[in-house]
Amino acid sequence: MDAGHLNPDRFFDPEPETRRAARLLYEETRALPIVSPHGHVDPSLLARNDPFPEPTALIIQPDHYVLRLLYAHGVSLESLGVPRKDGGAVESDPRAVWRLFASRYYLFQGTPSAAWLEYELSEVFGVHETLLAATADRVYDQIAEKLRSPEFRPRALFERFNIEVLATTDGAADTLEHHAAIGASGWKGRVIPTFRPDALLRIASPESWRAEFDAFERVHGSQITTFAGFLDAIRERRERFRAAGAVATDHGVIEPLAERASDAAFLFGRALAGTATPDDERRFHAHMLMKMADMSVQDGLVMQLHAGALRDHNQTVFETFGRDRGGDIPVATEFTRNLHELLNAYGNDSRFTLVAFTLDESTYSRELAPLAGHYPALRLGAPWWFHDSIAGMTRFRERTTETAGIYKTAGFTDDTRAFCSIPARHDLSRRMDANYLGGLVARHIIGMDDARVMAHALAYDLAKQTYHL
Amino acid sequence: MDAGHLNPDRFFDPEPETRRAARLLYEETRALPIVSPHGHVDPSLLARNDPFPEPTALIIQPDHYVLRLLYAHGVSLESLGVPRKDGGAVESDPRAVWRLFASRYYLFQGTPSAAWLEYELSEVFGVHETLLAATADRVYDQIAEKLRSPEFRPRALFERFNIEVLATTDGAADTLEHHAAIGASGWKGRVIPTFRPDALLRIASPESWRAEFDAFERVHGSQITTFAGFLDAIRERRERFRAAGAVATDHGVIEPLAERASDAAFLFGRALAGTATPDDERRFHAHMLMKMADMSVQDGLVMQLHAGALRDHNQTVFETFGRDRGGDIPVATEFTRNLHELLNAYGNDSRFTLVAFTLDESTYSRELAPLAGHYPALRLGAPWWFHDSIAGMTRFRERTTETAGIYKTAGFTDDTRAFCSIPARHDLSRRMDANYLGGLVARHIIGMDDARVMAHALAYDLAKQTYHL
Amino acid sequence: MDAGHLNPDRFFDPEPETRRAARLLYEETRALPIVSPHGHVDPSLLARNDPFPEPTALIIQPDHYVLRLLYAHGVSLESLGVPRKDGGAVESDPRAVWRLFASRYYLFQGTPSAAWLEYELSEVFGVHETLLAATADRVYDQIAEKLRSPEFRPRALFERFNIEVLATTDGAADTLEHHAAIGASGWKGRVIPTFRPDALLRIASPESWRAEFDAFERVHGSQITTFAGFLDAIRERRERFRAAGAVATDHGVIEPLAERASDAAFLFGRALAGTATPDDERRFHAHMLMKMADMSVQDGLVMQLHAGALRDHNQTVFETFGRDRGGDIPVATEFTRNLHELLNAYGNDSRFTLVAFTLDESTYSRELAPLAGHYPALRLGAPWWFHDSIAGMTRFRERTTETAGIYKTAGFTDDTRAFCSIPARHDLSRRMDANYLGGLVARHIIGMDDARVMAHALAYDLAKQTYHL
Repeated sequence: MDAGHLNPDRFFDPEPETRRAARLLYEETRALPIVSPHGHVDPSLLARNDPFPEPTALIIQPDHYVLRLLYAHGVSLESLGVPRKDGGAVESDPRAVWRLFASRYYLFQGTPSAAWLEYELSEVFGVHETLLAATADRVYDQIAEKLRSPEFRPRALFERFNIEVLATTDGAADTLEHHAAIGASGWKGRVIPTFRPDALLRIASPESWRAEFDAFERVHGSQITTFAGFLDAIRERRERFRAAGAVATDHGVIEPLAERASDAAFLFGRALAGTATPDDERRFHAHMLMKMADMSVQDGLVMQLHAGALRDHNQTVFETFGRDRGGDIPVATEFTRNLHELLNAYGNDSRFTLVAFTLDESTYSRELAPLAGHYPALRLGAPWWFHDSIAGMTRFRERTTETAGIYKTAGFTDDTRAFCSIPARHDLSRRMDANYLGGLVARHIIGMDDARVMAHALAYDLAKQTYHL
Repeated sequence: MDAGHLNPDRFFDPEPETRRAARLLYEETRALPIVSPHGHVDPSLLARNDPFPEPTALIIQPDHYVLRLLYAHGVSLESLGVPRKDGGAVESDPRAVWRLFASRYYLFQGTPSAAWLEYELSEVFGVHETLLAATADRVYDQIAEKLRSPEFRPRALFERFNIEVLATTDGAADTLEHHAAIGASGWKGRVIPTFRPDALLRIASPESWRAEFDAFERVHGSQITTFAGFLDAIRERRERFRAAGAVATDHGVIEPLAERASDAAFLFGRALAGTATPDDERRFHAHMLMKMADMSVQDGLVMQLHAGALRDHNQTVFETFGRDRGGDIPVATEFTRNLHELLNAYGNDSRFTLVAFTLDESTYSRELAPLAGHYPALRLGAPWWFHDSIAGMTRFRERTTETAGIYKTAGFTDDTRAFCSIPARHDLSRRMDANYLGGLVARHIIGMDDARVMAHALAYDLAKQTYHL
Repeated sequence: MDAGHLNPDRFFDPEPETRRAARLLYEETRALPIVSPHGHVDPSLLARNDPFPEPTALIIQPDHYVLRLLYAHGVSLESLGVPRKDGGAVESDPRAVWRLFASRYYLFQGTPSAAWLEYELSEVFGVHETLLAATADRVYDQIAEKLRSPEFRPRALFERFNIEVLATTDGAADTLEHHAAIGASGWKGRVIPTFRPDALLRIASPESWRAEFDAFERVHGSQITTFAGFLDAIRERRERFRAAGAVATDHGVIEPLAERASDAAFLFGRALAGTATPDDERRFHAHMLMKMADMSVQDGLVMQLHAGALRDHNQTVFETFGRDRGGDIPVATEFTRNLHELLNAYGNDSRFTLVAFTLDESTYSRELAPLAGHYPALRLGAPWWFHDSIAGMTRFRERTTETAGIYKTAGFTDDTRAFCSIPARHDLSRRMDANYLGGLVARHIIGMDDARVMAHALAYDLAKQTYHL
């Protein structure tokens, strides 16, 4: 694939009527500002606005999509320069890592990682060469040179990417200092935090929970000894996040169980005592999701639910290199029964918005679209992670639109920690939505005028509406 | 979308070879009579043959597909004139409801509801305007005027729709008086009942079960005190249904478990005593499915199984407005093990036909097509409910044909309670089957001559064969 | 469908850009040798090299795909000449069976069985007539005549099919005499065994287990009294298989649970005593999968896992006719948790290769592609059984490539016991992969040069690499 000449019709169906409609619809959305209500960019990047160090640290090492597929082909994480927790030796020459990646780049053919990277090379860095072993050094040098120029500082790119708003994801104990620094800097970029209290709810891992809880107490400013006090402290933190611009919370769960536990205070006591079991955690977490929904009704923060990832499946990789190295694997997920109590309690409330994301595509048409096609509070999150892809986005629209329409979906969320992939991901999403709508036009299911409005909604309006941005 | 000019190629793939074949195949089936072996039209409509009151009561209020998506966008059911169980105030001006619907009609773009409505407006009512806030009154008036003419009485429409046979769905305690009235009226339209004993089997809801059981005893004509007597009474009712023209039974279940319970008589005793638990009900229901299959072997009624809907998920909506308001949500469904005992007992019997419907599309290729591709008695029901849609019907064919062929599917069932949507739904189904077969022709998987026979079978023959019509 | 004129573009998308690319890509692979690392051809066929008896015994009776769909339409297995276990009367005239098949051949339209058969008729037997009741005898006679010629002996066909290597599947107690005979015959065809110890692990069926165990002891050459001895005997048998050319083991399981059992020796004792329960078997089997993986690390045999078939669902058919008559039905399958222990123990080991096959397509994108896109040892097996089909292969690529790429898939396995279908199945697979890649080219996702390499890999290289052939 020739990164130098991105085809203007790329990713569209080749059938001429569909392609023509898709192209027109994409053109309507191509230049719209980027609204990014959920992602994992490090806010210190934009607070400090330091130059990016060099291509490998920017493009390879933070991208668990890249790491995992290289690892799957026998490339050690050490050889990719991923730091070991024990401080053991890893490749320290970024150029060597880059060369290794270039030589294995063919493994990514047909994956969204290739589509994103090719956009980045061509559109972000103006590199008009295909990445191969033979071109690795030249491509590296071109990017490295760009990174030294002021136009490639994070804030300059933020502006060039036309980002209207960028949400980060932040632990409950986060000091929000980087968001404050951005605010105080006078720079006008809108970078907002998202309240993600997951670590505070993993009570069955006493050591890491205690560390998180201590940090939470510190940032809260006083000791927390009761469950009521814990809830109050969470309310206070949510308020701080809101004051810093937050519009949403985020919750990562294996199963999306939401259910009141009459003994929640007792379970919290076991957490404090370091004696909570996995079953305690499960019930405590289910109870806390109900509480979070309740708080969202009160404070207006949109509740995001990312369900179905079994984290750190590969214990060796986790123990050696830590989290987010590509070893998280989905499991079958149930929403109809798990969300029953939550939706009955809050799903009819116009003050509440729940955005549900899944890694189990069989739930699109079976559970999520029917639920979102009924409960006012529920919106369908964009196809997530493994499914944030050309065919994955197509499946999402094909399996949800007929039951829930497009107007109960929440717009696109890039969900990335790779800053330079943001425009690539939004561009891909706009293309695939234009292509989906173009297919409806070509089959006379919708008219072109309606399709134009729908394309605009999918690329921009729905994210703003859903997240009150 | 312009309701005024339905495109003759609508819903077909735009690729020319496929479209050409699809168009030819559709033309072969377009004018065939409608065979409707499963649906929810109220038989009193055709017994009384009164004019339909006005457009809103005809098109919006009985259609839970329409109600649920409007509700999902924050439109209250009160504002749509849906009666409250407590008699509380709801919108009483049908024109106001119609305007509200028209103003939100864009929410249905890309859903089958839009496809059906546009067919109804154009082909049934001759309304050649797009439904919008600005056209709402004019469209309303045009339909209302039509409804006052004799050509728009239910029986006249039945004949114009070219309905050869229409099955209704009727509780075990139904008196079948409307079917009798139709028979006695001299009108030749064939409207047949279907025996659906679900309410009689929900023994863990003592109050509603007792009410149903009392009605069943009344219609049966004598008291039922033993399980054997209960089974005899069911046999007798099935016979009455058969005498009234019934060809099938229908069973709505969350999980399709069929399994003999050695203590069934005891469970029936608990039902009579009002002490049956949910687990009792589960086992009793599983036992009764075995009994129903056994009775079908004897009396020849086709057994329909609709599995996987969790009814009344939204308790507030249920308590305020009752059933069938759009709050039923699918769950994952298992057939291979659940139907094991039933298929082993009756699945090899040529006297028996079981038609299975699912809301869990993952079962199409995994369980249902392999089962139907082996057991003589099993047929695959048409894509149901949320999946009775353009993409849904395509997925059904793509995932079942390669394993079960088309000749183990049961033809189309419109499953509707909205009388005027019947021709719209059959037309859509015929189009999608033609399109699927056209795709096989274009890919040289089948020849055009065979495709013609197959299109005819899917549109007409298979329903007649399956249901012995 | 006209078997006489196989369309050169058959099975390709009709859209011209895709079709053009698919055709070019297919042409690159059409003439490549067949590598068949997994299947069920009887090795005695090639050891004896006797002529095939006649068309029915060759084409109909060994093909459970054909038997099951005829049976599903009420054709008795007796009338198809399938031998009864009780020796009861069955149709003994192969021509009568052939005629029956021909008269029902339309039932297979749109299924891969039709695609395979039409290839066999046209390309293997040079029969240029459509199979119908009216042509049945002529077609039969043409094939029968061919079968009498030396060019249609098994080894001649093997060579004409351009089979580079053919793996059979053989029980742990197999003497491998036919493989030895082939080796000793001087014929150069490479026919290798595969070690499949399933029957040795079904300890909860005491009688059949004891028979298998006795045979295993005989072939091992000494009595086995301890679990350690059992493991040693298995190691020894694997070594014998390796010496006979084996490159792989194969394991058929309902659920792919792999988990060490601390009481495995005790469970083996219960097997010896004939007292093992189904739960004992489940845990014993899970333990043995761990042991098999461990042995694979040592001896290099690739481990194949075929998960999710509930065997012999139809007890009547099983009791009357035995196994493999079309009555096996898939169940929902879980890999993420079931393979957790195995992948953690061996999944990072470069000496180990696990090839996983599923009958539950919902696991492609949810579990299998993410697992294979991370663990170096895991490869995705080709779409299996019901999914070894035109649409099934397309779904497999669409749902796995974006997460795992194509280079973590294991190439095509025909998995057939019908010898003459081998080239038909590989041809279909090469066409569908070419079509998939052609679609990526037409949508500018990959370039044509890369697609050529990928097509070659899918048709040939990946099978050789995966299985060390």
